[in-house]
Amino acid sequence: MKKILLSVLLLIINSLLYSQHPVCVMNKNEADAVNTGIVKYPLLTESYHEIRSSVDEWLNKDIDVPFPKDPAGGYTHDKHKSNYILMYNSGLMYQLTGDVKYAKLVKDLLIKYAALNPGLKNHPQATSAYPGHLFWQALNDANWLVYTGLAFDCIHNYLTPAERKTIEDGAFKPEVDFFTHDLKSWFNLIHNHAVWACAGVGIVGIATDNKDYVDMALKGTEKDGKSGFMAQLNGLFSPDGYYNEGPYYTRYAILPFYVFANALNNTNPAMHIFQYRDRILQKALNGALQQTNLNGAFYSYNDALKEKTFVSNEVVEALDIAAKVYGVDNGLLLVAKQQARVTLNAGGLIVAEALSKDKTTDLYYPYKSIEFTDGAKGDEGGVSILRAGKNDHLSSLIYKYTSQGMAHGHFDKLNINLYDNGNEILQDYGAVRYINIEQKWGGRYLPETKAFAQQTIVHNTITVDETSHFNGSEQEGDKYHPDKLFGSIGDNPVQVVSVKDDKAYSDVSMYRTIYMLQLPDNAKPLIVDLFKVKSATNHQYDLPFNYLGTLMSVNTKYKSYTTNQTTLGTKNGYQYLWKEAEAKAAYPLSQFTFLNNSSFYSVSSLTDDSTRLFLTRTGANDPNFNLRHDPVYILRKKGDNKTFVNVIEMHGNFNSVTEMSTGSYSSVQQIDLAESTDYTEINITINHKKLQIVQCNNNNEISAKHSYRTNDKTIEFTGPYTVVYDNTMMK
Amino acid sequence: MKKILLSVLLLIINSLLYSQHPVCVMNKNEADAVNTGIVKYPLLTESYHEIRSSVDEWLNKDIDVPFPKDPAGGYTHDKHKSNYILMYNSGLMYQLTGDVKYAKLVKDLLIKYAALNPGLKNHPQATSAYPGHLFWQALNDANWLVYTGLAFDCIHNYLTPAERKTIEDGAFKPEVDFFTHDLKSWFNLIHNHAVWACAGVGIVGIATDNKDYVDMALKGTEKDGKSGFMAQLNGLFSPDGYYNEGPYYTRYAILPFYVFANALNNTNPAMHIFQYRDRILQKALNGALQQTNLNGAFYSYNDALKEKTFVSNEVVEALDIAAKVYGVDNGLLLVAKQQARVTLNAGGLIVAEALSKDKTTDLYYPYKSIEFTDGAKGDEGGVSILRAGKNDHLSSLIYKYTSQGMAHGHFDKLNINLYDNGNEILQDYGAVRYINIEQKWGGRYLPETKAFAQQTIVHNTITVDETSHFNGSEQEGDKYHPDKLFGSIGDNPVQVVSVKDDKAYSDVSMYRTIYMLQLPDNAKPLIVDLFKVKSATNHQYDLPFNYLGTLMSVNTKYKSYTTNQTTLGTKNGYQYLWKEAEAKAAYPLSQFTFLNNSSFYSVSSLTDDSTRLFLTRTGANDPNFNLRHDPVYILRKKGDNKTFVNVIEMHGNFNSVTEMSTGSYSSVQQIDLAESTDYTEINITINHKKLQIVQCNNNNEISAKHSYRTNDKTIEFTGPYTVVYDNTMMK
Repeated sequence: MKKILLSVLLLIINSLLYSQHPVCVMNKNEADAVNTGIVKYPLLTESYHEIRSSVDEWLNKDIDVPFPKDPAGGYTHDKHKSNYILMYNSGLMYQLTGDVKYAKLVKDLLIKYAALNPGLKNHPQATSAYPGHLFWQALNDANWLVYTGLAFDCIHNYLTPAERKTIEDGAFKPEVDFFTHDLKSWFNLIHNHAVWACAGVGIVGIATDNKDYVDMALKGTEKDGKSGFMAQLNGLFSPDGYYNEGPYYTRYAILPFYVFANALNNTNPAMHIFQYRDRILQKALNGALQQTNLNGAFYSYNDALKEKTFVSNEVVEALDIAAKVYGVDNGLLLVAKQQARVTLNAGGLIVAEALSKDKTTDLYYPYKSIEFTDGAKGDEGGVSILRAGKNDHLSSLIYKYTSQGMAHGHFDKLNINLYDNGNEILQDYGAVRYINIEQKWGGRYLPETKAFAQQTIVHNTITVDETSHFNGSEQEGDKYHPDKLFGSIGDNPVQVVSVKDDKAYSDVSMYRTIYMLQLPDNAKPLIVDLFKVKSATNHQYDLPFNYLGTLMSVNTKYKSYTTNQTTLGTKNGYQYLWKEAEAKAAYPLSQFTFLNNSSFYSVSSLTDDSTRLFLTRTGANDPNFNLRHDPVYILRKKGDNKTFVNVIEMHGNFNSVTEMSTGSYSSVQQIDLAESTDYTEINITINHKKLQIVQCNNNNEISAKHSYRTNDKTIEFTGPYTVVYDNTMMK
Repeated sequence: MKKILLSVLLLIINSLLYSQHPVCVMNKNEADAVNTGIVKYPLLTESYHEIRSSVDEWLNKDIDVPFPKDPAGGYTHDKHKSNYILMYNSGLMYQLTGDVKYAKLVKDLLIKYAALNPGLKNHPQATSAYPGHLFWQALNDANWLVYTGLAFDCIHNYLTPAERKTIEDGAFKPEVDFFTHDLKSWFNLIHNHAVWACAGVGIVGIATDNKDYVDMALKGTEKDGKSGFMAQLNGLFSPDGYYNEGPYYTRYAILPFYVFANALNNTNPAMHIFQYRDRILQKALNGALQQTNLNGAFYSYNDALKEKTFVSNEVVEALDIAAKVYGVDNGLLLVAKQQARVTLNAGGLIVAEALSKDKTTDLYYPYKSIEFTDGAKGDEGGVSILRAGKNDHLSSLIYKYTSQGMAHGHFDKLNINLYDNGNEILQDYGAVRYINIEQKWGGRYLPETKAFAQQTIVHNTITVDETSHFNGSEQEGDKYHPDKLFGSIGDNPVQVVSVKDDKAYSDVSMYRTIYMLQLPDNAKPLIVDLFKVKSATNHQYDLPFNYLGTLMSVNTKYKSYTTNQTTLGTKNGYQYLWKEAEAKAAYPLSQFTFLNNSSFYSVSSLTDDSTRLFLTRTGANDPNFNLRHDPVYILRKKGDNKTFVNVIEMHGNFNSVTEMSTGSYSSVQQIDLAESTDYTEINITINHKKLQIVQCNNNNEISAKHSYRTNDKTIEFTGPYTVVYDNTMMK
């Protein structure tokens, strides 16, 4: 009875609120506050004038609403895109200035769409399973729906009921019907496309007082809550805010998440949407910002484009709303400063005000060592970011052991990436795509994304028998995830993460433990990488280092293919690698040094006399010149059980202005694997001192006490590992 | 008699001045002024404290003066280098503070060198014809001599006569004798090495009151004026200040030129050294600064390293002295602001003071279209820089028709390079060198510099029969130079430079006319490149475009070498190019578009059905991984007389933040060569309008009147060319 009453009450509140417009971007009171702020806070002033003048140049013009024809980057694509941005901005201008010329611009365009949309069929350039009407893919139609919904809400009160009906029936309904009937399975996905689609339908629902739309948006077409926005909030994030498709996609999905949540919150504050799942939307944003390079570029794992930074429009919109609902902190302010613009709403007002009073001089986001679980319950692996160093000397090692991450995920179990001094050192290639450039297959993901960039060999993890993880099957990959064994990260001299994967290959188990050690004798942290593979049968194990930089030296005599080059292999990404040189590895220590900008990097590897080295470069099998030509250094071992021990150093300095180079050589003299059964014992001679790591392989308990006998003494330690440098136990 | 009297008088003045110390960097009065400025002008304060603390950390330490052993980048090399900088800085500190601890540091080091130097033979790593003692090459010993001479002068008055003698005889004399006896031919060269050597000997001469040294420095070892500093001032610069080795080397030579001139001027103002040759040193500095990219990087033609900018120490030293003797202007101030440091002398004081009062907001040097002649008399070709656009949208086309430029010159007659928006678009590869990195052949110029980077095929000019200009012989190249036929550059819609070369090949004459046109319908200037080759016999003509960017499209179906790659050729640089694809050119128009950062570039070429295209990439035959992997697009024609007509467009915009791309296609629809005998007539359809260029091939008189009959009308024009766009005569 109580429940029914509550529902009735909510219904009444809802309908009351529904009848108030505008409400999506901001309500009347907020608009008044923004207007006051425009004359007070420079960044708001600037953003306001920028947007206003971008709208003003279209006033009193007959704006084209062309029949859809072109792929991304082409005229009709870009026109529909600039039209929805224009309508949104003009709607804001009307809401802020009250000048009907802005409302008229939106209305005229919407009326044209109301005439166009009902007759649209699948776009002629549509090739995907989820075709669009106005654009080549439905996702772009969803973008259109979000922005035009917001625009409609802004001018709602200017429109006559008849005009509203014309637009609702002509412009919106065909799109909503298309999404919720024709593309129902797509709309009901737990995936970034569907986030945009639900946000679009939901915003249009709020803007047009259509409860049916809002309900479908929140709970899926069947309104059973198995899909829709709430299910997306539940399913796409881990409890600590990791977004299943990775930070590059958080960037993209964060706008519909925040903008629709903001509209819901304005309409129905009792939902407490921003508090939902222990503030999952706040965690999502902060988590994505922690996963950026010093220049704001999101880490490039999964299908990422490296040029995308946190100054993207999506992040501006989300950040400003976050500032309103969660408050501003130094991290958000730093990002907002770099964005150098705000949205014209209550959040933008708060950010602009805070920036006008800001006295901080930080140049970088407050990065820290941080770890995220993956999966809705947080039990599907995760990603650890081990950091050391300050400001522009920050070193960040990303150890990725997440689940697959759906179609944009890569076959990269136990992969590591390294950023240092703001540069990518050990890279993930990202995606192969020239977004919105018509000449490059209409700006779509190019075929090389799947065939090359997603394959295991272009990741810094092991490929077995020249076959990618899960045999390159997303469907298989989606079923499994690695398991973290133990770890400890934070602001201390020994950081470690140990992970196991025994699903990527049917008969090979992989164990990788990454140590980031701050030795007293080295300016930069040292990375020790113990990568053990176990199998009952013999295999070929390839461990690549997708490095960026200029090769300085290899301590091995190699055969170089100087006049004729062939590919490293024929399938699973190998066909995209030119084989530039190969060698029998040096025994027992192979060393490889490269220069990236002003810093040197060395990989010192324990190699036996059956290990082979390859120096390769991406760019083979690329008739359309879609690929970059980046180097890849590969260690190859053959056998059943093998342990790769690699020490990665960041060292020295090259200054091209003073023409001085210092510390250009590795400090590692020796690597020895003394034991590899129940315990692993590694002895590294570095700086002519001994660095010893002992790790227990069958007990991950942090309280377990161990007594391990080395060749000259017994070491007592607690928990699964100990690190001793120069006779001092670091942990 | 008058002459003798004058000489005697000068001698007296000289000896008077010689007995005053310090005098090289600044005299006592100037030092007092600098001391006053240190507490007033922020940049001077900052530079002072930076230098002082860099010296302070070495006080009371036993500083190593090791026996020379290592190549560049190695310990002994870097130690001797940091020692001379330290002595110079500590000398300055003594001069400014009067604190004897600074003088003592210099003295102690010089006494160590006085013990070391007499016993030195050729450096163990010396491989060049001009070996050093302290360093692998004599040039570095000359650097040492310049800085230690300045340091000695600073502490001259602190030293006892006996200490002075110890240092003069032990530290300096062995080096001076080595230069002026053992390496006499090198010392007497007209070349940047010898500039350093003469400056070093001259500064030591002034510092130690040794007239013999000063005379040798000014007039060569034979004191006949055929070599030495004055001959270098005469011989290395053209009358308008173009430095024979190009701007990258101006950067390097400008320090000894200015620093020695400053010491001479302080000692003997009557020499009016800074007014010499109509202020040749001012022209040299300003000329080099005009030859930089927006980031301050010197144009990379000849053996240049692209990371070298005008913030280099050498330019700081020269600029500050220039500010003192010639006055400060906005250009110098802009550069000084980016240098963000000043030298601790009267010039640095003036610059720091000017900057403290500076209200300008310019972000870039005042670049303009500018032309330099080459050769001491200005009659050995030259270089034209055609510019358009403002600030970060500047477009600069460098048309190079200089003489060879000695050993660091490239075989690049009639080469063009293009910079746009601060990016290199059509590049000169520069040199192959990792300066001061020991692993890379001791930081020397790598063999690929001569074998690859200097060869014609990696320049944007024609290679005949796969053989470089002058058959790759510097000696031959040094004898000749191209001749400018006509030209007009400046701030107008038609800029043009036409040049002929008939010496690079014995039986081929090359005529290249470059037009930079500002059409009313295009935001960016259009470049029309008419390149005619004439020969009595058949040849193969290759015209490459060494572009930087990502290939967007080629309008020709090509064969791509996807799984097996071979080199384009076997010699003269061709062996360093991987052949990625080749094609029979489209007839009659071949179009090629690439993306560089946020801008598109297209090359539209008139091609007949015998023309072939090659898509190649540098990096073959590179066993030591010394080369970058940059793309080269090549047009190949065969025959006797051939005309290459290329239209180079800078167009459109790609914005990765808003994900919008505009204008990504070429606007050229057609190119037609209507006439190519006494007149050349080109008709280009662009923006669906007609652009017509008519050029007279046998009369370069600017006043000559022409009446030329096209297929539909007669055009009357004056001077060797006319440009008509859309029925309007632009010139």
